[in-house]
Amino acid sequence: MTITITAFERSPDGGMGLARDTRVRWALEEAGLAYEVRPVSLAAMKQPAHMALHPFGQIPTYEEGDLALFESGAIIFHIASQHAGLLPDDANARARAITWMFAALNTVEPPILELVTAKFQEGDKPWSKERMPLIAERIRHRLHQLSARLGDDEWLDGAFSAGDLVMVSVLLRLRPSGILNEFPSLAAYVARGEARPAYQRAFAAQLAFNTTRSTAD
Amino acid sequence: MTITITAFERSPDGGMGLARDTRVRWALEEAGLAYEVRPVSLAAMKQPAHMALHPFGQIPTYEEGDLALFESGAIIFHIASQHAGLLPDDANARARAITWMFAALNTVEPPILELVTAKFQEGDKPWSKERMPLIAERIRHRLHQLSARLGDDEWLDGAFSAGDLVMVSVLLRLRPSGILNEFPSLAAYVARGEARPAYQRAFAAQLAFNTTRSTAD
Repeated sequence: MTITITAFERSPDGGMGLARDTRVRWALEEAGLAYEVRPVSLAAMKQPAHMALHPFGQIPTYEEGDLALFESGAIIFHIASQHAGLLPDDANARARAITWMFAALNTVEPPILELVTAKFQEGDKPWSKERMPLIAERIRHRLHQLSARLGDDEWLDGAFSAGDLVMVSVLLRLRPSGILNEFPSLAAYVARGEARPAYQRAFAAQLAFNTTRSTAD
Repeated sequence: MTITITAFERSPDGGMGLARDTRVRWALEEAGLAYEVRPVSLAAMKQPAHMALHPFGQIPTYEEGDLALFESGAIIFHIASQHAGLLPDDANARARAITWMFAALNTVEPPILELVTAKFQEGDKPWSKERMPLIAERIRHRLHQLSARLGDDEWLDGAFSAGDLVMVSVLLRLRPSGILNEFPSLAAYVARGEARPAYQRAFAAQLAFNTTRSTAD
């Protein structure tokens, strides 16, 4: 059955790979699955056809036969649970890998999202400049803890898993801010993720997609 | 095997049920599982013994034999995947229910967390009063979309699932702000969740736990 995901017609980051379709492309590549991508414009994203697929009017979505999903974490989990390569076979190790997916999305990403919100939705406010260091401190607090847990390990819990895929994707959003590089072991962890052939293919595919669509415009 | 979770020695909300152990208690009650609760003080939460269980120094954690988990979403998923009553049997319906768990935690909860952060970590800042309406607007935006998707349905996708359990738990955090009551269909949805016998038992247990520990102090 054909797998179709949606992505920004033109990603706001111009192909830096920070839009959430990259996470899903990466998971699909790790699982060795072919997929098609349907571009959605910012205007179409809020229209009934897309809102029927994604109640919050975002990308990515995932369609496969009569199954339609939204929310990148859920899509990655679906792929990981149906195919080898992203979750360990051992039941306890599997539960722990899934734990890291949730931790990345509900504990590590929210303070990082605040940084994005502060920049794009409150960047013109008089408090903008003074608030940024406070947000950065909250992010550093989480990264200190994450870095302590990772220690000298290659991945968060044994072999590479969907937990690492999501955590690396979340941390990548921090690179433009410079905060990630304050934590060398986490920067190296992210670099290990980016070095995976499946990530490379996913990144190249989103870059080609965004570049092609820009020049076609 | 005995299931042991951790909870605040004394919850900062004094037993309103908004701490994240309530979500896990609710899932355990829906699944009909007995459990024990180990109280952790705010000081002990940052000590090595607890940080070994929870790398971000929070509650709840979950221990069952040689399995140790943290992060409430992951714990609820683990319970739901091992026991009947929280996820549908049909594979597609199951994937959609899991999607709502992720959507609650990664799309609906982050703006709600901003409200909490603004109050407790930036409440003394000069911008505090002026920012609140902006945060409230971002929350309302999500609730409009959620309310549109729920429509006149009882639950988000067919029968009650772990997706509803997490979404109701996330929305409950909004009640003190008054924002939830601006959306009557969502307020009714939350009330349906609270009316479930399993929620009632979970709420009563956390209230007794917090009350007992306060008077024992």
